[in-house]
Amino acid sequence: ALIAVLPGDGIGPEVVGQGTRLLRAVAERFGHSFELTEAPMGGVAIDLTASPLPPETLALCQRSEAVLLGAVGGPKWDPPAKVRPEQGLLELRKALGLYANLRPVAPFPALYDASSLKPEVLRGVDLLVVRELTGGIYFGEKRRDETQAFDACVYTVEEVVRVVRAAATLARTRRKRLTSVDKANVLETSRLWRAVTERVVREEFPDVELKHLLVDACAMHLIKRPADFDVIVTENMFGDILTDEAAMLSGSIGMLPSASLGANRRGLYEPIHGSAPDIAGRGVANPYGTLLSVAMLLRHSLGLEKEARAVEAAVATSIEAGTLPADLAPPGTRPAGTEEIGTAVL
Amino acid sequence: ALIAVLPGDGIGPEVVGQGTRLLRAVAERFGHSFELTEAPMGGVAIDLTASPLPPETLALCQRSEAVLLGAVGGPKWDPPAKVRPEQGLLELRKALGLYANLRPVAPFPALYDASSLKPEVLRGVDLLVVRELTGGIYFGEKRRDETQAFDACVYTVEEVVRVVRAAATLARTRRKRLTSVDKANVLETSRLWRAVTERVVREEFPDVELKHLLVDACAMHLIKRPADFDVIVTENMFGDILTDEAAMLSGSIGMLPSASLGANRRGLYEPIHGSAPDIAGRGVANPYGTLLSVAMLLRHSLGLEKEARAVEAAVATSIEAGTLPADLAPPGTRPAGTEEIGTAVL
Ligand SMILES: CC(C)[C@H](C(=O)O)[C@@H](O)C(=O)O
Ligand SMILES: CC(C)[C@H](C(=O)O)[C@@H](O)C(=O)O
Repeated sequence: ALIAVLPGDGIGPEVVGQGTRLLRAVAERFGHSFELTEAPMGGVAIDLTASPLPPETLALCQRSEAVLLGAVGGPKWDPPAKVRPEQGLLELRKALGLYANLRPVAPFPALYDASSLKPEVLRGVDLLVVRELTGGIYFGEKRRDETQAFDACVYTVEEVVRVVRAAATLARTRRKRLTSVDKANVLETSRLWRAVTERVVREEFPDVELKHLLVDACAMHLIKRPADFDVIVTENMFGDILTDEAAMLSGSIGMLPSASLGANRRGLYEPIHGSAPDIAGRGVANPYGTLLSVAMLLRHSLGLEKEARAVEAAVATSIEAGTLPADLAPPGTRPAGTEEIGTAVL
Repeated sequence: ALIAVLPGDGIGPEVVGQGTRLLRAVAERFGHSFELTEAPMGGVAIDLTASPLPPETLALCQRSEAVLLGAVGGPKWDPPAKVRPEQGLLELRKALGLYANLRPVAPFPALYDASSLKPEVLRGVDLLVVRELTGGIYFGEKRRDETQAFDACVYTVEEVVRVVRAAATLARTRRKRLTSVDKANVLETSRLWRAVTERVVREEFPDVELKHLLVDACAMHLIKRPADFDVIVTENMFGDILTDEAAMLSGSIGMLPSASLGANRRGLYEPIHGSAPDIAGRGVANPYGTLLSVAMLLRHSLGLEKEARAVEAAVATSIEAGTLPADLAPPGTRPAGTEEIGTAVL
């Protein structure tokens, strides 16, 4: 299997380094052959080629079965810079047709202490947000003149149908409960979203229980009763906000993996944290989000469920054993570095 | 002073009943004369007149110095109903030019136990969200056809200038720290927002410290380090989501007041909770959000700072004394009803 590896900026290369180590170990242990090819993307690609997503990088991703990405961005390429790293990420999602972004949140009991939320609220939390990733206000027309700015938010029926199908299909493998989040009391795109979701689930997934929730109410319930959720499906912008909020249930955004999928098995896998330029190069970044992204890569793009579970079990064991990065290690204990965590999981 | 009173739907009349009782008591105690006039708005107005904001109600609000609102909405008027209660609320905000929505969050120590967040995270939280209320995607053009739906998000320079001025002016009366929240890495309206905010604060409020935060990062920080925030200013949709999330810091959305202000002193005051049809008419609704909204009304529209503080002190005393509604009363204690809470504050 050909896997594209895009380390990106900041702590990206460090965490991806552990991800590729893990992939090689899985290949060896389970007798697979993975061909890993690195390419520049993000700020590092801007510096090399003036483009955050050089054509060669995109071509590599297009012929790969999966893409493993670290993180992109940093102060060097912040606005007012005209060409910015995240444009490369948005282009890549769009070019690969990765319309369904899976962000699971299932806090480890050993990390309850590190969360801002009380343990009794965290108990039993096991939710999956499926965020629409290639539509909505992210990709609508944009304009600006002297006096005003404009962003268009557009959703087509087809865009809603396919992501709802993906979410409902995943709900079937879980607790069969789907919450669709919108702002149907205000937005026309949300009223379309709600109507299409209702129809797709009723007609094609009668065994899945569907509820609708307004985005503001969802932002509350995620804090108040997060264990109530199974699968959440929502549009691009709402998903961006709600998943960062939900990340706080797990104690640290550094813990969380993501998978971005499209019509075929090719997927993009990345931790949901950013490039954290402040701690880059010091060997202290948390690689768990990347290691769990590798598990998702094995499962969703390579169909290697057993291997994915082995990785997830190894991560859980290592966390419960207290091998934790600086922002999660309890006071008085020695934090583990990036490589040490990678080794523990291996 | 002429005050319009719009009880609205569900628990609206019950909580507003305590609000008007409190206004009458303040008038008597401090020697003022308030003329309170009720009018229908929301679902109840749809039933009476087919419109959620009848012209007489709007006219009353326009000639009043302040408007006290309960809550609107209920299953009876949910979609697919074409005329819906919240349209009346959006129209009222727009017609009165109430562009700055103030939502303070300062959890009472007696309610720390009721919050999902740990007490050490809540300690010292005292933040104010200023949400832009009459622009953005809420009021942009909307379209729908067979295959797609469209919402326009527009911000003019002037719309940003005035709400940022309001927020920075409020920051000056507090800890002088302003956080502007946008999604400038994706949206053109956010890039305009950021540039205008930067200019207004630098030129007109050099004594106010300004930071910019992406909306997804803000959704995290509100949970992780809420005590870091002083004043947050943001656009309409982001403000809707972030304030409901922030409400969870206070233990219950029932605690939180809001003020919506425009170019003159006239304002609209309402608790941020909804109409809670499931508990309506049972005398158990939490009136604290409304009573604290009355304090904001006294302060911002009538200029009665001393009276506002007296109300806030009475609310704090009553809460610390344990006079709490069902969702906040500790297990094993008797919850207080709506009227009982109103009486305690009086
Ligand atoms: C970097 C940014 C454009 C991106 C997004 O908003 O989608 C990020 O926040 C994410 O969630 O992956
Ligand atoms: C009822 C609804 C239109 C309204 C809004 O989104 O503004 C409400 O959620 C609020 O926050 O006041």
